[in-house]
Amino acid sequence: MPKINRYVDIDTVEREAKKDYIDRHSPFIHCAATAKKGDKFAVIVKVGNEYSHPDDFDHYIANISLYSSETLVARADYVAGTLGGQGAKGQLEVTFNIVPTASKLNLVAHSYCTKHGLWESDPVVVEVTE
Amino acid sequence: MPKINRYVDIDTVEREAKKDYIDRHSPFIHCAATAKKGDKFAVIVKVGNEYSHPDDFDHYIANISLYSSETLVARADYVAGTLGGQGAKGQLEVTFNIVPTASKLNLVAHSYCTKHGLWESDPVVVEVTE
Amino acid sequence: MPKINRYVDIDTVEREAKKDYIDRHSPFIHCAATAKKGDKFAVIVKVGNEYSHPDDFDHYIANISLYSSETLVARADYVAGTLGGQGAKGQLEVTFNIVPTASKLNLVAHSYCTKHGLWESDPVVVEVTE
Amino acid sequence: MPKINRYVDIDTVEREAKKDYIDRHSPFIHCAATAKKGDKFAVIVKVGNEYSHPDDFDHYIANISLYSSETLVARADYVAGTLGGQGAKGQLEVTFNIVPTASKLNLVAHSYCTKHGLWESDPVVVEVTE
Repeated sequence: MPKINRYVDIDTVEREAKKDYIDRHSPFIHCAATAKKGDKFAVIVKVGNEYSHPDDFDHYIANISLYSSETLVARADYVAGTLGGQGAKGQLEVTFNIVPTASKLNLVAHSYCTKHGLWESDPVVVEVTE
Repeated sequence: MPKINRYVDIDTVEREAKKDYIDRHSPFIHCAATAKKGDKFAVIVKVGNEYSHPDDFDHYIANISLYSSETLVARADYVAGTLGGQGAKGQLEVTFNIVPTASKLNLVAHSYCTKHGLWESDPVVVEVTE
Repeated sequence: MPKINRYVDIDTVEREAKKDYIDRHSPFIHCAATAKKGDKFAVIVKVGNEYSHPDDFDHYIANISLYSSETLVARADYVAGTLGGQGAKGQLEVTFNIVPTASKLNLVAHSYCTKHGLWESDPVVVEVTE
Repeated sequence: MPKINRYVDIDTVEREAKKDYIDRHSPFIHCAATAKKGDKFAVIVKVGNEYSHPDDFDHYIANISLYSSETLVARADYVAGTLGGQGAKGQLEVTFNIVPTASKLNLVAHSYCTKHGLWESDPVVVEVTE
């Protein structure tokens, strides 16, 4: 409360509408499996994998947050219209470039839909080498 | 992951350091028990009740979010220094004035500490009358 | 570019529609003329003084920022619906409580309308005494 | 007030320290010269071109905003530590992917340094074709 919805593998979901609902709201983290300490490392967060979310004034993805363990790494905020606006659909996508210093990143992303609340990605572990 | 720490009544906690730790990180919602539909309604969110949090550059409360059920109502962001800066302690406090339209508000606040992550308040239910 | 619209005294403006346009978009800072160093000091930022702004999905005030000289003190973000939602009008209002350490605050607020961009308040100088 | 510092071509600046100061604070927009209406279009905003900014707790780039004309497209917020943390330097970089619908984008980026305030990029015009 607020509930944080967590992604579940949509291959395990039967109803098409539910697959769509879960997938289009969930943030997905795309990045390399390993990073080099002190080097720039790109973390892409994309909302939706196989499905797309509306970009309507009263129903859009308003922000994306990226955490590493308990730490907020970065957050991107949007108003409606970034993905084509009223009537359009799309997958919100942001690339945060970070420079890791710890030996491991435990990345998790959150996205916030103005109608359906908070969603959490699957975690992604990145090994950071010297 | 990120863990969301939830407030627990510190009267049930024995160790002084733990009482302090929990209290100073937790957001507390202060508002009237009832609101009038269409009228301005003040919701104060204050971080810490009996204890105060540092406002150091490397350790401060960076944001406060207010949700009603699954909906983000407002969020306030800060940089270090709002409460006196390096060496000072304080209770971050923001008043969001909202105009309720639903028949009930289910308020929950989150605060984010740059060292100790996300914290969630006790929920507060407000009856909204016509 | 983006243009920052600045408040002008609407008593100097003739056309009613223009008075309304300027007033309802402008943030106004309300606070005491003096503060005490190290004590909590309330700064209210209210968008609109004599006029009110729509809270429609495609036209609302999305954020309020408070600066002291070049420093960002705090920022509040909103989605549409805080002031009654579609069809309603209101004056967005937030109270930031800060603890001043400098001998003077040079406060300026910005507000952002999703249709009419950035607006800047009149500056407010606060003397901070020991 | 707050002053918005604007990038000036550092080739016209003589003092090395001033070149560094201007360059490391200024956001630079990198994107294609033309976009296709309805297609994803990547806008990279990078703070610093030839010089790098500290990522210290008391001195870092806290946010990047992207505007198209008067409209806020997206904003990214950071806490200190994204670029390697205390003692490290770097160029904060975010990629916002947007879907243009207008016939032209008039992009401008702002960055905010916790010590040296607001900085504005050179504008970038993007032609959007059908």
